[in-house]
Amino acid sequence: MNRLLLLTLTGVFALSAPAFAQTAEKLDPGAMAKIKDEGLNRSQVMATAFYLTDVCGPRLANSDGLKRANEWTKSQLTKFGLANATIEPWGDFGRGWDIEKSYVALTAPYYHAMIGAPKAWTPGTAGALRKSVVYVKATTEAELEQFKGRLRDKIVVLPVPVVPKPSFEPDAKRYSDEELQKLAAAKPAAPAAAADPAAAERLSQRRAQAALRTKMAEFIQSEGAAAVLSNRGGTDGTFNTSNGAPYAADAKPALPEIEMSTEDQLRLIRLAEAGVPVEVEMETRTRFQTQDLKGYNVIAEIPGSDRKLKSEVVMLGGHLDSWHAATGATDNAAGCAVMMEAVRILQASGLKLRRTIRIALWGEEEQGLHGSRGYVKNHFADPATMVRLPAHEKLSAYFNLDNGGGKIRGIYAQGNEAVAPIFTDWLQPFADMGATTVTLRNTGSTDHIAFDAVGLPGFQFIQDGLDYGSRTHHTNQDTYDRLVPEDLKQASVVVAAFVYNAAMRDQKLPRKALPVVAKPQ
Amino acid sequence: MNRLLLLTLTGVFALSAPAFAQTAEKLDPGAMAKIKDEGLNRSQVMATAFYLTDVCGPRLANSDGLKRANEWTKSQLTKFGLANATIEPWGDFGRGWDIEKSYVALTAPYYHAMIGAPKAWTPGTAGALRKSVVYVKATTEAELEQFKGRLRDKIVVLPVPVVPKPSFEPDAKRYSDEELQKLAAAKPAAPAAAADPAAAERLSQRRAQAALRTKMAEFIQSEGAAAVLSNRGGTDGTFNTSNGAPYAADAKPALPEIEMSTEDQLRLIRLAEAGVPVEVEMETRTRFQTQDLKGYNVIAEIPGSDRKLKSEVVMLGGHLDSWHAATGATDNAAGCAVMMEAVRILQASGLKLRRTIRIALWGEEEQGLHGSRGYVKNHFADPATMVRLPAHEKLSAYFNLDNGGGKIRGIYAQGNEAVAPIFTDWLQPFADMGATTVTLRNTGSTDHIAFDAVGLPGFQFIQDGLDYGSRTHHTNQDTYDRLVPEDLKQASVVVAAFVYNAAMRDQKLPRKALPVVAKPQ
Repeated sequence: MNRLLLLTLTGVFALSAPAFAQTAEKLDPGAMAKIKDEGLNRSQVMATAFYLTDVCGPRLANSDGLKRANEWTKSQLTKFGLANATIEPWGDFGRGWDIEKSYVALTAPYYHAMIGAPKAWTPGTAGALRKSVVYVKATTEAELEQFKGRLRDKIVVLPVPVVPKPSFEPDAKRYSDEELQKLAAAKPAAPAAAADPAAAERLSQRRAQAALRTKMAEFIQSEGAAAVLSNRGGTDGTFNTSNGAPYAADAKPALPEIEMSTEDQLRLIRLAEAGVPVEVEMETRTRFQTQDLKGYNVIAEIPGSDRKLKSEVVMLGGHLDSWHAATGATDNAAGCAVMMEAVRILQASGLKLRRTIRIALWGEEEQGLHGSRGYVKNHFADPATMVRLPAHEKLSAYFNLDNGGGKIRGIYAQGNEAVAPIFTDWLQPFADMGATTVTLRNTGSTDHIAFDAVGLPGFQFIQDGLDYGSRTHHTNQDTYDRLVPEDLKQASVVVAAFVYNAAMRDQKLPRKALPVVAKPQ
Repeated sequence: MNRLLLLTLTGVFALSAPAFAQTAEKLDPGAMAKIKDEGLNRSQVMATAFYLTDVCGPRLANSDGLKRANEWTKSQLTKFGLANATIEPWGDFGRGWDIEKSYVALTAPYYHAMIGAPKAWTPGTAGALRKSVVYVKATTEAELEQFKGRLRDKIVVLPVPVVPKPSFEPDAKRYSDEELQKLAAAKPAAPAAAADPAAAERLSQRRAQAALRTKMAEFIQSEGAAAVLSNRGGTDGTFNTSNGAPYAADAKPALPEIEMSTEDQLRLIRLAEAGVPVEVEMETRTRFQTQDLKGYNVIAEIPGSDRKLKSEVVMLGGHLDSWHAATGATDNAAGCAVMMEAVRILQASGLKLRRTIRIALWGEEEQGLHGSRGYVKNHFADPATMVRLPAHEKLSAYFNLDNGGGKIRGIYAQGNEAVAPIFTDWLQPFADMGATTVTLRNTGSTDHIAFDAVGLPGFQFIQDGLDYGSRTHHTNQDTYDRLVPEDLKQASVVVAAFVYNAAMRDQKLPRKALPVVAKPQ
């Protein structure tokens, strides 16, 4: 109901194109009205999201699905009227991998089809396996040794990290006014204090756990197990996927492995622990692609119209790749659809843009921001040396979207104190649509970091979480169904306005000091 | 945290065995303390629930799983020390049905393993099918006719009743004090007023929808479709199952049909509606059992110790059968485990019981309370004629549990005004455990109705809903994981106390007036 009301208000607002309160930044009410009108009344964002998710399918790094999405977005951006659309290699990634069959069922003590998906970059089972199950629970190497000689030709079941309980908290939420005020008042996070003993302890624990996991995988394989069933959380038929097996061209072969729904995995574990003989049937077929080990980004432009400024660039983007058990709707078809819609709005609105706009849909973000890092290194600067290319001077800003499908509530200024008041002014026309907050706080884990790392102004928007943290992030339920049309429309117009303002401003956006690189010893 | 606190308090309470406030009913604090001590400190309810769910498996009417559960509960009740344990036929049911294989995947435009289960009593596919898909959306017979000639050898996809959205409400909830007060003040629901035009309209709509569904099924089959994919709601990987295909021995054959997860079904529908060619692979194998068409209940007793009163009986029970896509944990292994635990507590506590206690675990409840109705007709009275058998006079009460896995908050007096103050007194020792409320309101849809229908005092307890309504009821996620140990322990001691009090009371419980049967014309 609130969303309907919001739409009505903003619809009226868009048509009446009011003057805004006095701001230090020059705002163009007519341009803002055109952007809102196009983005709210003739939106194509859901059609774009449908193609990215349902039609292209899962878009794991260097998979067939990502290739389909690269081709489709390049073609679609061209249809939107953009120039220079290209699928540009960023460097070497590794093997492509696609699922051709996935089936897993309990076959004794009775039949029950289970929910799961092959772990990324694991091999298939070479036909159907039907094996008895051993539950391998070990928190130390000594405990692991107790399974010596017991795993040959078995399907190994690994522990569940979190046992689900009935949930008294809603899956989805939006920022409260109080939470936004807190964000607005926040300072940039201090660099992780090496002296914090609790943090150091946690890090050391995590490393020990990761080391044990590696040991377990080696042990299970060397003991001759047939396959592995693992779990990394989720509930209600939703399961998480985790970092896959190695994708490097020369990676050692791993065992077939299925990441299971938590409830199915726990049933296997309870039966095994009670001494009930358990048998599982599984069949996975996966296809490795080693012909083309490169990774790619999709790039397209709206050339600038100002003779002096058109050599300068405003970039926007999000990552196009996803995990493989769903269609990566909130991570990150939503971000890509919004960015594509933002450039479509700008193109369709007929507004003249002084600087050149460049959209980038990144590949291989999920394995370490590879696409954006490669692009930045190829075009702007090497973060290791801070040797800069000429284009480094020409970039005004990069705007990123990758925190799920929720509407925009503001923007992270990423510690850039000079830019914060500019963003505050730019948000003013969107206050009644819920976008109000500028925080100096840093946010990480996605592609603006590649820009920030070489001293370029890279920003990520603040978004309502909805059910990103609880339900969709890296799960088998990250599908088109999760997307809220009014949220994506709102985000599209806010992004279009930011890009427009950055393109029209007399100066490029202010920058932080360049990072200092330690001299090689 | 509240639950922990509760346990601590009740633990202390149980040991100190205090006197209760003055009540009209005689309460035995020592007996109540023994019941709490056994039920809270030496509970076996979770072990029982584990066997019923994980070990016995799905327990569809007349399935192998239900047979396993019948055998195991008979044996386990005997181990608990009960007498006369028997698997007693209640009458003719129909065919048994079990799943031997269930696999369904999208194979074009790309591969994606989907979540679903064969609809109960549908035949298998006789090997793997790989067919293109037609979405049959019809709200009238005329719309249905448009699919004439288009379904041969296709997999038909049916509409989704409710499109899911991100959820801002928690799955699980408990009764608030206010809701309980409202229940306590409620009068028995008036018989459905035939004159209510809105209710009549809704009923007529439902009938029209059901009639259209039947027409659609006949049409799709007569048009030569290969199989059907349908959906009855659910979200996040959870899907609902619905009433199955006919189970009668002479039922017409149906098409193979899978009940799908909503998100998977919606993806098929969106692709089909966009004109993207969609291909699905499916393989189901189901096994019909026609050797034994009877249905059964499991019955066992603790014989009464009072020479005069031991011919009188206090019954308790719940239905043992479930739907097939999960293990029926909250519907209704929970109720059965609590009832079994209640008789175990009474047996283990060494308390002498004047009347005979009889536990009944009903079969075939999900198809229309068949097990309890058959039992009542065989032992007590025929509701059609109200001809009563001698045992009708000897039953003090029947207590039922079948509203999920939540703890007991009170009891439905089912319109029996004379019994309400007795129950209010009986609840008094459990007020600090959250069980406080007697409502005159009727509740239906489960086995106490079979007793109520022949004028016998049949009661169902009020339980916290937890996620029964939102997540587990008739879904693929109704598994052991949903059960909350502290809730089931609490329920076990409350039930044990009610049964104890009914067994010890000088009089049987008061009854409502006998139902009046219309004379045959």
